[in-house]
Amino acid sequence: MINILFAAGEARWEEYKHVLPKALKAAGLTADLSRDHAPQDTDYIVYAPNPALKDFTPFTKTKAVLSLWAGVETIVSNTTLTQPLTRMVDGGLTEGMVEWVVGHTLRHHLGMDAHIVNPKQAWTPKAPPLARNRTVGVLGLGELGASCASALAALNFNVVGWSRSARDIPNVMCQSGSEGLEATLAVAEILILLLPLTTATENLLNEQRLAQLPKGAVIINPGRGQLIDDDALLDALNEDHVAHATLDVFRMEPLPWDHAFWKHPKVTVTPHIASETRADTASEAVAENIRRAETGAPLLNLVDRSAGY
Amino acid sequence: MINILFAAGEARWEEYKHVLPKALKAAGLTADLSRDHAPQDTDYIVYAPNPALKDFTPFTKTKAVLSLWAGVETIVSNTTLTQPLTRMVDGGLTEGMVEWVVGHTLRHHLGMDAHIVNPKQAWTPKAPPLARNRTVGVLGLGELGASCASALAALNFNVVGWSRSARDIPNVMCQSGSEGLEATLAVAEILILLLPLTTATENLLNEQRLAQLPKGAVIINPGRGQLIDDDALLDALNEDHVAHATLDVFRMEPLPWDHAFWKHPKVTVTPHIASETRADTASEAVAENIRRAETGAPLLNLVDRSAGY
Repeated sequence: MINILFAAGEARWEEYKHVLPKALKAAGLTADLSRDHAPQDTDYIVYAPNPALKDFTPFTKTKAVLSLWAGVETIVSNTTLTQPLTRMVDGGLTEGMVEWVVGHTLRHHLGMDAHIVNPKQAWTPKAPPLARNRTVGVLGLGELGASCASALAALNFNVVGWSRSARDIPNVMCQSGSEGLEATLAVAEILILLLPLTTATENLLNEQRLAQLPKGAVIINPGRGQLIDDDALLDALNEDHVAHATLDVFRMEPLPWDHAFWKHPKVTVTPHIASETRADTASEAVAENIRRAETGAPLLNLVDRSAGY
Repeated sequence: MINILFAAGEARWEEYKHVLPKALKAAGLTADLSRDHAPQDTDYIVYAPNPALKDFTPFTKTKAVLSLWAGVETIVSNTTLTQPLTRMVDGGLTEGMVEWVVGHTLRHHLGMDAHIVNPKQAWTPKAPPLARNRTVGVLGLGELGASCASALAALNFNVVGWSRSARDIPNVMCQSGSEGLEATLAVAEILILLLPLTTATENLLNEQRLAQLPKGAVIINPGRGQLIDDDALLDALNEDHVAHATLDVFRMEPLPWDHAFWKHPKVTVTPHIASETRADTASEAVAENIRRAETGAPLLNLVDRSAGY
């Protein structure tokens, strides 16, 4: 019997208490997942930041700490943690992002909102242009951005992607550098933001860059709230330069009750759901790593303490 | 000189009068496209439903009737029509249909409507399941149904397809026959109707078959209005058995002002825009078929009168 301590908050326990045991069993492991194992009896720790566990010293026989979070910045510098530490890499997160981005891109491409809310019963049988005649810009071509760009290209969209350094993605016109950013903004009828947040990308979409978009462009932001200058975006919407913004991320979350985005007729707010670690796929990743440890195979996604991730 | 009678309404003539002659010429044909050829001089008829042409008897030397519509239910039972009949299979039509179907499938999969219309500013950060955990049923696996099924499978949806006769489509679980229909309905969380309209498919989705769907299923109909028993669907929606219906086609179009679908909170009406034959790509298809007939090659997309499509 393998004793696994679940060291994360109450809400996480509710999510994982059934699916994680199932994943462990599916991986061929006989395990006891509990929130109450004594430190000296604990073989593995499944961890998410929580106030109860700060000192890893008593876990003398623990073979690994498996983080449920992709980012381990809150734990990597804990000097009492000497056991191997892994971070979460969840395939479901990329899949979920692609589904959200492709879905909202098609929503705007097809002009769905006019049919979803149509109190005047307008019947205007005008088909939208084909995707091959619609240009979508994707800013950021990391794992998430590249996956979204490829999925949109597979649906025949004319996709232009931009990243800081040059990339090469089949069926995507890849741009880079500051000239490439201008070229991308100039043609993007639908613009998707999937850049990481750095000092270079904060407020990337400011007044000047919003003005470079074609009139009537739509902005979709599942990346980071800080990529956009909120006031500049509101101005561009009010001036009819930008037709709509669908936003999943915000400078403050939940989005404050009185923020102008909530009531704006050209803004759709989604509650940070575009990409989320899913208990089912994350459980598979945890189970696979414990299976590897038990059979002497190297752990996946092991954190390099000196690099910090 | 090949005499081609253009037998369709005025609006169609405006669309085709320039692009069709161009396509015929590009196919190497010397043809005279006109709305005024005498029946006994007509080699081919390009046809869309219209009140002027009901009797095909005088067209004694006509070699084929080429429909501009994909659905031929209004003409296939015309007993005066003994000439070979082809239906439209237009690449642009398929692309547009795939975009509409994938878009509305993702809309329902992601639960977008709750964010598009959210006056109470609800912030409920619960991500939807992944597409791979969502089962989509596609009834009808012709050119349109098969293309939609493949596109949905490429986005990781768990796709079950059903057709009258057995089909084989990569990554799609293909069902056929009446047992296959029951099996498909039983698992379809989202059900897409892309069947041709025949005596066998009229009212296919009746009270009994709607009851076979899982509770909370969503219906998407870009096929034909007559595939659904409207009253049975309204009952299923009012009883919360079916969660939503997005309908692009209706028994009468435009959908009559006082039809219950318009104001029903669980129905989305789109104005027959899911698939539209584009004059340029359709003209190429017509020209290719006339070229084949003139060179003795078999016609493409020949209608099987006994099957009705």
